[in-house]
Amino acid sequence: MGRLGRLTVNKKIIKTPALLPVINPHLQIITPAEMRNMGVEALITNAYIFYQSDQYRDIVKEKGLHDLLDFDGAIMTDSGSFQLSVYGDVAITNTETLSYQRDIGSDIWVPLDIPTSPAADRATAERELEVTMERLREAREVFGDDAPIAAPVQGGIFTDLREQAGKEIAEMGFSFCPVGAVVPLMESYRYRDLLRVVMASKKTLSPASCVHLFGAGHPAMFAFAVALGCDIFDSAAYALYAKEGRYLTAHGSYRLSELSDLPCACSVCRSHTADEIKSSDDKERLLALHNLHATLAEISRIRLAVTDGTLWELVDERCRSHPQLLAAYREMLNHTETLEQHDRATKRRFFYRGDESCRRTEVLCYQEKLSRLRLGKNVIVVMGGERADGYDTVLRFKPPFGPYPQELAETFPIGQSEIPPWDESMVRQGCRGIRMLAESHKESRVTVACFRHWAAFVRDELPGIEVLADED
Amino acid sequence: MGRLGRLTVNKKIIKTPALLPVINPHLQIITPAEMRNMGVEALITNAYIFYQSDQYRDIVKEKGLHDLLDFDGAIMTDSGSFQLSVYGDVAITNTETLSYQRDIGSDIWVPLDIPTSPAADRATAERELEVTMERLREAREVFGDDAPIAAPVQGGIFTDLREQAGKEIAEMGFSFCPVGAVVPLMESYRYRDLLRVVMASKKTLSPASCVHLFGAGHPAMFAFAVALGCDIFDSAAYALYAKEGRYLTAHGSYRLSELSDLPCACSVCRSHTADEIKSSDDKERLLALHNLHATLAEISRIRLAVTDGTLWELVDERCRSHPQLLAAYREMLNHTETLEQHDRATKRRFFYRGDESCRRTEVLCYQEKLSRLRLGKNVIVVMGGERADGYDTVLRFKPPFGPYPQELAETFPIGQSEIPPWDESMVRQGCRGIRMLAESHKESRVTVACFRHWAAFVRDELPGIEVLADED
Repeated sequence: MGRLGRLTVNKKIIKTPALLPVINPHLQIITPAEMRNMGVEALITNAYIFYQSDQYRDIVKEKGLHDLLDFDGAIMTDSGSFQLSVYGDVAITNTETLSYQRDIGSDIWVPLDIPTSPAADRATAERELEVTMERLREAREVFGDDAPIAAPVQGGIFTDLREQAGKEIAEMGFSFCPVGAVVPLMESYRYRDLLRVVMASKKTLSPASCVHLFGAGHPAMFAFAVALGCDIFDSAAYALYAKEGRYLTAHGSYRLSELSDLPCACSVCRSHTADEIKSSDDKERLLALHNLHATLAEISRIRLAVTDGTLWELVDERCRSHPQLLAAYREMLNHTETLEQHDRATKRRFFYRGDESCRRTEVLCYQEKLSRLRLGKNVIVVMGGERADGYDTVLRFKPPFGPYPQELAETFPIGQSEIPPWDESMVRQGCRGIRMLAESHKESRVTVACFRHWAAFVRDELPGIEVLADED
Repeated sequence: MGRLGRLTVNKKIIKTPALLPVINPHLQIITPAEMRNMGVEALITNAYIFYQSDQYRDIVKEKGLHDLLDFDGAIMTDSGSFQLSVYGDVAITNTETLSYQRDIGSDIWVPLDIPTSPAADRATAERELEVTMERLREAREVFGDDAPIAAPVQGGIFTDLREQAGKEIAEMGFSFCPVGAVVPLMESYRYRDLLRVVMASKKTLSPASCVHLFGAGHPAMFAFAVALGCDIFDSAAYALYAKEGRYLTAHGSYRLSELSDLPCACSVCRSHTADEIKSSDDKERLLALHNLHATLAEISRIRLAVTDGTLWELVDERCRSHPQLLAAYREMLNHTETLEQHDRATKRRFFYRGDESCRRTEVLCYQEKLSRLRLGKNVIVVMGGERADGYDTVLRFKPPFGPYPQELAETFPIGQSEIPPWDESMVRQGCRGIRMLAESHKESRVTVACFRHWAAFVRDELPGIEVLADED
C-alpha cells in the first residue's frame, strides 16, 4: 500500500513519504536552516513547549514560528497531547491550544486529542476516544472547515474502535490524519500490534488522507510502515539517540562506544574515524548529523522503491533487522487480500528473496488472473522436460507464479522476475497456481510434466492431476 | 571465514578488509589525495600503463609513484597481466615488469601471471598454470624472498588446479595472494563458480596469507567474498560506472537517468537532488564521488560486522539483492563443515532471518557440541507445556538450535539469539539437534514434550522418540 504523494499546506509542498524532524526550540542541535540544506521540507515542533516557555511564549506570536526558527518550509505543531500522555495533565484546553497554534503561524495544527495507552482497557479506550472525537468536532466548529487541522485516530489497541474513529474522521472530511498513541508499541517492538492498529485505521480513512504515523520513529521500520500506507513520520530520534551516544542506521542502532568502524557514507562518517568521533568535543552534534543524514537517506531509499515498485523487496530486507519486525512482516503477508487492492499491476521487476516472496501481492494477483486464460480441452503444464505433443494448450511453469502461456512470457511478472534455482516453497506456491487454473477451467483436462526429482513433491501438491515424470 | 587483518607493506599499514581503488594516471576523476581524505589507505594502479606511456614512463622512475600520484599510502601495481588477458599479448617480460615496478617504488609488485579464462579447457588451464608458477619461482629467484611480490592463484575453473596452485604458493612462503581470473565470473553473475574457485584456493593457501580477490568488484558482493575469507578488493567500478552514468549502492546499481531520489547519505546525495546531478556539468565526478563513498561505507559496514560477529546476517541481507547471489549463498551453506573450522565460538548475537539461518555455522557448531552434555537415564526435552516431573534431566528447546540445559540459557548462542514465532524450518533444524543428542547418548532415553499443534510435525521428524503432546 505504499504510495508517493504531494501534501500541500499553505502553498508549501511536501513530497511524501517524508520525515519531519522534531525541533525543540530550547535545544537545537541541528538548526532548521541546516536541515533545509539537507533537503528537509517540513518539520514538527511542540506548541505547548512554546506556550509554557517564558522565553518564547509571546515572541513567537509576534514573529511567527517560521521567522523564529528561520525555516521557510512547512511547520507542524503538536498540541500538548504528548505531554498529556506522559504527565497525565496539561494546563491548556483544546481551543486554547488550537488558537495558539494558529496565532504562531503553524501550518498544521493538532487538537488536544487523548493518546490512549495500549495498556488501557476497552472502557477507557472508548471513553477517551469519545473525548478526542468531541474535540475534533469542536475544532471544526470553532475554526471552520478550511483550517489546517490534523485529525488524530485514537482507540487504543481495539481495532474496531480505530476503524470507527477512521470512519468518522473520513466523514468529517479531514485530510491529514495522524495515527496516535503508537509510540509505546514501537518502543516495545510490538510491531504486530502496530500492523493491526494501522490497518484498522487505514480501512476506513479516505485513501486521499495523508496518514501520519505519530512519533515514528526508527528508520529501520519506515519501509514497513510505508508499505502499510503511512505517508509521514516525525522523529526526534536523530537528536535523542545522539544524546545517548547512539548511532542510527536503517538496519539497526549501535552504541558509539561499540563502533570500531562507521558503516555509513555520510559526510561525518567519511571524514572521521570512529575513534575521532568518540573523542571529539562535538560528539553529540556529529552523531546527530549522522543520524539525520542516515534517516533522510532511508526516506529517499523508500521513495525510490515505491517509484520502482520494489518496496516489497525493501520491506523484506528491512524487516529482517529485528525478529519482531520479521514476525510482523510475515503477519502482513496474511493480509494480502487487502494490500492487493492498492498494489500496482506492473513493476520494474520481481526478485525472489526467500520464501516470504511466495506470498507477495504480485504472486497472488497473478494467480487470480489465471481464470482469465482461454484453454483448450487438453492442457499440459510443462515444468521440465519436453512433452508437448498432442495437447491443445501448452503452458510453461515459473515458480512461485505457476503456469503461464508463451504470450505472457515477456510481460510482468513472468518476464521481469528473477528466481534462483527452485526451492520447495516456490514450487509449492506455483502448484497452487496450477490448482487454481484447473479449478477455474473445469472443462479442461490439465496434465503436468516435470522432472523426475520433483515428481513426488508435485504429485503431493496436486492430487487429482496427472503428473508425468521425465528423465532429468 | 571473515576476518579483520593488518597488512604491513614497507612500514605502511592497511586494515583489512579493504578496497583499493584503481587509479588510471591518465584519467584521475578523483585524485589519490582526495581518496586519502576519504580514509583510503592503499590504491592500485597498472605499471604497464606507465611503461607504455611516453608521458609517464621515465618520469615515474625518477620521482616514484607516490610522489607522482601524490599519495603516501600503499600502492600496488598490476603487471600487465590484465592487458594480457584482454589483448592476448604484452610487450614486456616477467622480470622486466617486476624490475619496473620495483624501480617506480611500488609497494606490492605483481608478476606476469596468466589469467586463465573460465572458458579455457583443462589442458590450457594446466599449461597456463605451469607458466604462472614458473614465473612465480623466477620472481623469487631473481628478486629474493623479501621482495614484496604478490603470488596470483590461477587454474581456471578447475578446483583441483586452484588447490594445487595454492599449495605450491603456500610452500614458497608467499603472503599476499591474489585469486586471479575471476572478473569474467563476476561479470556474468557466476557467483557459485566464484565460490568454488575461492574456496579451493583458500583450502591450501596459508590462513596467514592476505587474499586479494583480483578485480572485485561490485560492493553488493563484498560481504559474501569476505565471508569466504577474502581480505582485499580492487575496483575501478566507482569510475567506470560513473562514466556510464550508473549509480552504485551496496544493494545494486541504477542508471542515474532512472533515479527520482538518491538513496544514500553521502555528501553528494544529501546536497543535490537527483535532477540536479542529472543536469550538472560535473555529473561524472559527482557520480564517481558518490560511488566511492558508497563503496567505502560498505567496507566499513563489513568490518563492523566481522568485529561484532554478525557477518552472516549481512551476507544474508546482501545476497538477496540478486538471485544468483542468493543461489551462491545457499550453496555456501552446504560448506559449513569447512567454514565452521574458522568461525568464532561466540558472537554478539544471533538474529534469525529466515530459513537460511538454520544452516548457519553457529547452529551446526552448537549441535555438534551436544554430544558433550552429561545426561541422566531419563531425559525430557520440553518444547512446550509443563511436563518435567519424574525425569533425571530436563532440557529446554530453542529452535533452530535444539535442546539445551538451563545452565546454557545465558550463554551464546542460546542466550543471545532472537527468534520470531516458530516456523517449520527452524523447528525441523531444532529436531535435528534432538536426534543428534539421542544418537550421542544411546544409554539415555529421550522423550519430547511439545504443544499439540506441533506434535504431528515433531513425530515425523523424530521417529523412534516418544513425543508427548500437551494442551496448548
